[in-house]
Amino acid sequence: MVLTIYLDLLSQPCRALYITLKLHNLTFETQYLSIEKGEHRTSEFTQNISRFNKLPVIDDDGFKLTESVGILRYLARTKAIRDSYYPQDAKKQARVDEFLEWHHANLRSLCSPYFIRKWILPKFYGKITPADKLNPYFKQMVTCLDNMERLWLNSGLYITGDQLTAADVWAACEIEQLTMTGYDPKIGRPKLAAFLERVRNETNPYFDQAHQQVYKYAELENKNSKL
Amino acid sequence: MVLTIYLDLLSQPCRALYITLKLHNLTFETQYLSIEKGEHRTSEFTQNISRFNKLPVIDDDGFKLTESVGILRYLARTKAIRDSYYPQDAKKQARVDEFLEWHHANLRSLCSPYFIRKWILPKFYGKITPADKLNPYFKQMVTCLDNMERLWLNSGLYITGDQLTAADVWAACEIEQLTMTGYDPKIGRPKLAAFLERVRNETNPYFDQAHQQVYKYAELENKNSKL
Repeated sequence: MVLTIYLDLLSQPCRALYITLKLHNLTFETQYLSIEKGEHRTSEFTQNISRFNKLPVIDDDGFKLTESVGILRYLARTKAIRDSYYPQDAKKQARVDEFLEWHHANLRSLCSPYFIRKWILPKFYGKITPADKLNPYFKQMVTCLDNMERLWLNSGLYITGDQLTAADVWAACEIEQLTMTGYDPKIGRPKLAAFLERVRNETNPYFDQAHQQVYKYAELENKNSKL
Repeated sequence: MVLTIYLDLLSQPCRALYITLKLHNLTFETQYLSIEKGEHRTSEFTQNISRFNKLPVIDDDGFKLTESVGILRYLARTKAIRDSYYPQDAKKQARVDEFLEWHHANLRSLCSPYFIRKWILPKFYGKITPADKLNPYFKQMVTCLDNMERLWLNSGLYITGDQLTAADVWAACEIEQLTMTGYDPKIGRPKLAAFLERVRNETNPYFDQAHQQVYKYAELENKNSKL
């Protein structure tokens, strides 16, 4: 029984899944693909790995699955995932699910459009978005991060209470990547800042391993902005 | 033990959840709220029902939960939901989850921006989006519906095979509402057309009950466009 994960650590859901697998000491093989080079868009990938042309994908002894949150739930049912990380209790699991669904319609939908235009499009495709067109996406991201601080980080050390769950890892990986645009989501958001540090400490060394490229690009962006 | 659902049947996730509850003959009380009148945004709602100010919300004997997909999973663990509708088998459940996650990032994220600008904003707030600004959202919706036809409806009667699952109901409710804008998603998409009809037949009379207002507004839109 071999579990293979196809990923690019420049992708947020790939990082969240990688951290989850490492944190639980699961045995898996890693196939690194480059989104920048379009390695997830080849006809070979479409035919043999996934018709969705997205990462991550897992192949669990022939069962291929996409969508990181769906994969997380599948792993929780079939592998040794800690109960505190994705609880089996109906109500506790519902609280983690509630965040993971909110994540899609908020953190992911409202922060990544800015990230894509500010960082992905210029870097991968040489496409620059003018400042006035970027601005609405920036504002949308700021409001969303304010909502994250206001709605989810008011009680307990983590999103659903005092124990780390998958919700925290998915959130932290999404927010951390914004630093690559030169924006620091921690400034002016003390609860978010403390939360991100807590998730990083609790999941290290895997959090830092997964974010190596993110940190490198964030540092580069900081240096460039000071020139 | 009382299960209450707060909803507005003009909202897609509310309709999907309503159909699910009726289809399984679950006992529940319904609290109808008007999104148009902002009844989900009052301070009473925020304090007593949900700080997210979104619908649907369930209150299961004091346990309040938002996010329709999270609610579906909670109901599948705590109430008599048919196994074929949300399977307990790890791989079958993963296929339903895979679609429900794709739904967020595709059907919902890429079709509702057009729906909101073309229908919600003029109707609820008197705000008209000029045709040239609407156009990119229209194109995005068309591509997404083409992907739905191409990626998900190629094998089997339903999204994950030959049996109706929650994936089908969530998808059909999202797609059906587009008719309110005067656009017919069935034209040029024979598999999608057959699929929508199949889901409607399989879930009636609840599908039609849930879509009463949708049908009314779609008919009105058709009449107006013929004037």
